[in-house]
Amino acid sequence: MTIYEMRAYIQLNLSTVCSDSLGSMQAAIKKLVEKGYVSVTEYVENNTLKKQYSVTDKGVKYYKDWVGTPINIQKMKSMEEGKFFFLGIAPGEKRVAFLKALISDMEVEYEKLLVIKDYVGKTQDTAIARNTKRIKEDPVLTGNLLEVSGEKTVEKAVTNIDNYQIYMLEYGLEKIKADLNFYKKILKRELKGSESNGCKKQ
Amino acid sequence: MTIYEMRAYIQLNLSTVCSDSLGSMQAAIKKLVEKGYVSVTEYVENNTLKKQYSVTDKGVKYYKDWVGTPINIQKMKSMEEGKFFFLGIAPGEKRVAFLKALISDMEVEYEKLLVIKDYVGKTQDTAIARNTKRIKEDPVLTGNLLEVSGEKTVEKAVTNIDNYQIYMLEYGLEKIKADLNFYKKILKRELKGSESNGCKKQ
Repeated sequence: MTIYEMRAYIQLNLSTVCSDSLGSMQAAIKKLVEKGYVSVTEYVENNTLKKQYSVTDKGVKYYKDWVGTPINIQKMKSMEEGKFFFLGIAPGEKRVAFLKALISDMEVEYEKLLVIKDYVGKTQDTAIARNTKRIKEDPVLTGNLLEVSGEKTVEKAVTNIDNYQIYMLEYGLEKIKADLNFYKKILKRELKGSESNGCKKQ
Repeated sequence: MTIYEMRAYIQLNLSTVCSDSLGSMQAAIKKLVEKGYVSVTEYVENNTLKKQYSVTDKGVKYYKDWVGTPINIQKMKSMEEGKFFFLGIAPGEKRVAFLKALISDMEVEYEKLLVIKDYVGKTQDTAIARNTKRIKEDPVLTGNLLEVSGEKTVEKAVTNIDNYQIYMLEYGLEKIKADLNFYKKILKRELKGSESNGCKKQ
C-alpha cells in the first residue's frame, strides 16, 4: 500500500477515531519502519518515485499481540472534552456561543459519517468480493490473514473485518448523536436560564 | 490549593475526562509554574513542608482566553477506541473475550460515576454555600472569579460552576451508558453469529 491508499482507507473507515493528516501518518509509518514492523519497497511509476509499504512477519506478530490486549478505558479520556466542565466559569454569552459552535461542528461531522455509512453499506458485497480476490492473489498476505484471524477461508476473514468496519461507523454515528442530544439539552437550559434572568435551572 | 486538594477535586469532578495520577499532575503543575500561570508558596504544617499553589494574574488571563476557544472535535478522537475497529481481524473467541472485558470495565466505571453523582447531588446546596464563603474570604480570588465570569455576585458565579460540574457528570454517565449499549449489542451479534456457525449477521 502507498501512503495515499492508506489515507483513503483511513478516511473511509477510521475517520471517527484517527487523524488522516499526511504529516502524522508519515511520522507513524517512520516509527513502524524503524521498529521493523513495516518494510518499504521503492519503484518508479509515470516517472515518479513511489513507496510501497508492507507489513513484516515481526509486524504481524506484534499486531496479533496488540489486538488481544483490552481497551484501556482510562486512555479514552480526553481533556478536550474536559473543557466543557470549565465552561461554568465563563460568562453566559460565551457559554451559549461555545455550545452553538460545538453543536454545529458535530452536525457537520454527523452528516459526513452518514455519507460514508451510506456508501459503505451500498458497496459492502462488492467490497468483500474485491478484497477477497485481491488478498487471494497475494500468498503472503493470505497466509498472514488466515494466521491472525484463525479463519479457514479468506472470504470469512474479510467478512469479519468488513462487519467491524460497519460497527465502527455505527459507533461513531451513535456517539455523535448522543453528544449532540446532550449539548442541545445544555444549550436549552442555558437559553431558559438567561430568559428567566439567570435563575438556577436543572 | 495543595496537590492533594487538587487531586480530590479532580476525582470528584473530572474523573470522566482527566487522569488523577500524582505523577501526571506534578508534571502538569511544573509546566504551569514554569510558564508563570501558577505560583508556589511553601509553608510548614505539623513538621511537614507543604506546597500551596495559586493561580497568577497571567494564569487568569490565559484561562480566560482558553475557555473561549471552541472544543476541537478532531482532538476528541482517540485511537484507543480505534482498537475496536481492528477487532474484526481477530479470531472469534478473542473478539468475545475483548468485548466482555470492555463491558465489565465500563460497568465498574459507571457505578463509580453514579456514586459520585449521588454524592454531588445531595451536597450541592452545602457545596455552593461553602465555596461562596471560602471565595469571599479571599479578595484576590473573588476579584478573579468576578472578572472571568462576568457575574455580579460570587454566589451566581459559583452556582454556574456547580451546574457545569453536574452537567459533566451527566455527560459521563450518558456516554458510558451509550457505549455499554453499543458494545452489548455487538457482543450479542457475535454470540448469535457463533451459534449459527459463523454466518454473517448484522
